[in-house]
Amino acid sequence: MSKKIAMLPGDGIGVEVTKAAKQVLEAISETYDINFEFSTYDIGGSAIDQHGTPLPKDTVKGCKGADAVLLGAVGGPKWDQNPSDLRPERGLLGIRKALDLYANLRPVKGFKQLVHASPLKEEIIQGSDLLIVRELTGGLYFGKPSERQDNGNAVIDTLSYTKEEMERIIDKAFQSAQIRNQHLTSVDKANVLESSKLWREIVEEKRKEYPDVTVDHVLVDAAAMKLITDPTDFDVIVTENMFGDILSDEASVLTGSLGMLPSASLAENGVGLYEPAHGSAPDIAGKGIANPIAMILSAAMMLRYSFALNDEANAIESAVESVINQNYHTADLNNENGQLVNTEEMTRLIIQAI
Amino acid sequence: MSKKIAMLPGDGIGVEVTKAAKQVLEAISETYDINFEFSTYDIGGSAIDQHGTPLPKDTVKGCKGADAVLLGAVGGPKWDQNPSDLRPERGLLGIRKALDLYANLRPVKGFKQLVHASPLKEEIIQGSDLLIVRELTGGLYFGKPSERQDNGNAVIDTLSYTKEEMERIIDKAFQSAQIRNQHLTSVDKANVLESSKLWREIVEEKRKEYPDVTVDHVLVDAAAMKLITDPTDFDVIVTENMFGDILSDEASVLTGSLGMLPSASLAENGVGLYEPAHGSAPDIAGKGIANPIAMILSAAMMLRYSFALNDEANAIESAVESVINQNYHTADLNNENGQLVNTEEMTRLIIQAI
Ligand SMILES: CC(C)[C@H](C(=O)O)[C@@H](O)C(=O)O
Ligand SMILES: CC(C)[C@H](C(=O)O)[C@@H](O)C(=O)O
Repeated sequence: MSKKIAMLPGDGIGVEVTKAAKQVLEAISETYDINFEFSTYDIGGSAIDQHGTPLPKDTVKGCKGADAVLLGAVGGPKWDQNPSDLRPERGLLGIRKALDLYANLRPVKGFKQLVHASPLKEEIIQGSDLLIVRELTGGLYFGKPSERQDNGNAVIDTLSYTKEEMERIIDKAFQSAQIRNQHLTSVDKANVLESSKLWREIVEEKRKEYPDVTVDHVLVDAAAMKLITDPTDFDVIVTENMFGDILSDEASVLTGSLGMLPSASLAENGVGLYEPAHGSAPDIAGKGIANPIAMILSAAMMLRYSFALNDEANAIESAVESVINQNYHTADLNNENGQLVNTEEMTRLIIQAI
Repeated sequence: MSKKIAMLPGDGIGVEVTKAAKQVLEAISETYDINFEFSTYDIGGSAIDQHGTPLPKDTVKGCKGADAVLLGAVGGPKWDQNPSDLRPERGLLGIRKALDLYANLRPVKGFKQLVHASPLKEEIIQGSDLLIVRELTGGLYFGKPSERQDNGNAVIDTLSYTKEEMERIIDKAFQSAQIRNQHLTSVDKANVLESSKLWREIVEEKRKEYPDVTVDHVLVDAAAMKLITDPTDFDVIVTENMFGDILSDEASVLTGSLGMLPSASLAENGVGLYEPAHGSAPDIAGKGIANPIAMILSAAMMLRYSFALNDEANAIESAVESVINQNYHTADLNNENGQLVNTEEMTRLIIQAI
């Protein structure tokens, strides 16, 4: 078996953690009988610097020709004052749209060993294990018009969805719930938004096709509360793009280990993109101390979702767990009783454990 | 001095806590030389039952003719299946628009005595004291079009603001920061939304008029994280309607005492409306065990903001604090070492302390 992987290191610690993930994949390739072909492309701030655009055509072409994409992170203070079409995150939004990555899957799972790092009390966060399924190519992010009006005295953005766009993400969420704990929480604002009313209708229609899945509807404001007070009540959460942006970031800090959280962005039939939930962390970039685990677990998600290599994905995930259980940790996690290691050492430990 | 107060008890525990607030105001009226004239109007589910609409014309007229409005809460399972224009929350949205209540102020402050009830670790929540200033009459809530399109195969909602709508809420937030800790955090999604770009421009313009206030810009997803990891970093947060809905509910559970949080919704020159941050709590309605403090503190906010009765507002707030410090609590707050009281007893204790 041979697979082409497009590597998009991006900016900041994106570069370091992508390198770590590549090393882990090379170890997998040696242990199992798989060949990975890596090609690297520019995106984000570094692409602006080198090509004058956050998403060069070559990058899109390279990703489309690959079997999967690994992305590090984009952004940094250097480009913060740029006009909007020359900002690193335009590269991210652009690649999502170009590859039609409509389904963003963000698992949030507390590691027992790391519960001390959670801002929540142990009895609240302990045992939480949820998956946020966020719609990624519709809603306020891409709706038109999005413009100034009335000589600059007014402005509108448009939250727009087709029924099909809603159906495919809701199907994906039901299917995700089926292979997890058969509980789906659909989050909307149906007491205010027409789009949420349609969303809720579709969830109600679809649930007949998935009778094994229990369904709740929770309003987005209530969901923002419940994530904090009762995180263990959730299994799979499905929601539209902007609500998903907010809730998945909120959820990502609950376990206290943002540096451990992977994500997958999937297309219907095309190539999938995998990236850590964290950003480019300009403050620690280049120091070799970043936590590579979120990126390494993203590579594991790639093996599972894009290549159906479940054993190999499990091997990476078990290796990460065993290293954590041995109390090794990077600088983002305070642990007085643990052993502090840097990016390279953490990567080596995980490779040894594979 | 004589003031007309329109009372809108609404549904569920709204009725009980409004009664409690009225008793406290009567005590204030006896102690200080003020006369309050109360008139009661229907809103929400009970208005649907009695008048076939969640917001009868008489209610709007009564509120407009009053000096301030006290609202309990609306909603309940009885009306959950109603068509959207016959739902209790339409009454709430309607009265906001009718009175042009553009500024929703939601203070969130931890009581030392109640830190144990917070889902957050004590060292994280201790000392937090923030005010969320939410725009309440614009954005996705009222933007047109909000409709099905393409024969029901698509749907749009519109996030719409005028420059003036943004300016007045941003001014209100700067002014609130001036009388607090001179720190304003403006929350937007300027890396995606055109409306957020205009919002950020206006904050940047306005900051020149308030040189004593320090200003941060934080993206809404990052704000949702930071509220949990660093709640003490905030003083005043200002944001648009939908972001404010989500973030203020998120913030409301941080201290563990949602039943203690008041809110004010203010107009430019007109009457203000005051209501607890919590809902109608149908599960405990009618049992006489609801925590009346959020509503009582809302009445204190009314005295301060609508009537400039600062001493009287302080008297209520100090009374609440002293009762809490004596370890009395209602059933919503678990406190093994405290003394459990019901709605009436809590109200009486507060009146005694005035
Ligand atoms: C960078 C930004 C445009 C992006 C988003 O809002 O989707 C980010 O917050 C994310 O969640 O991946
Ligand atoms: C009931 C609902 C329409 C309302 C809102 O979204 O504004 C509520 O959540 C609130 O925050 O007061």
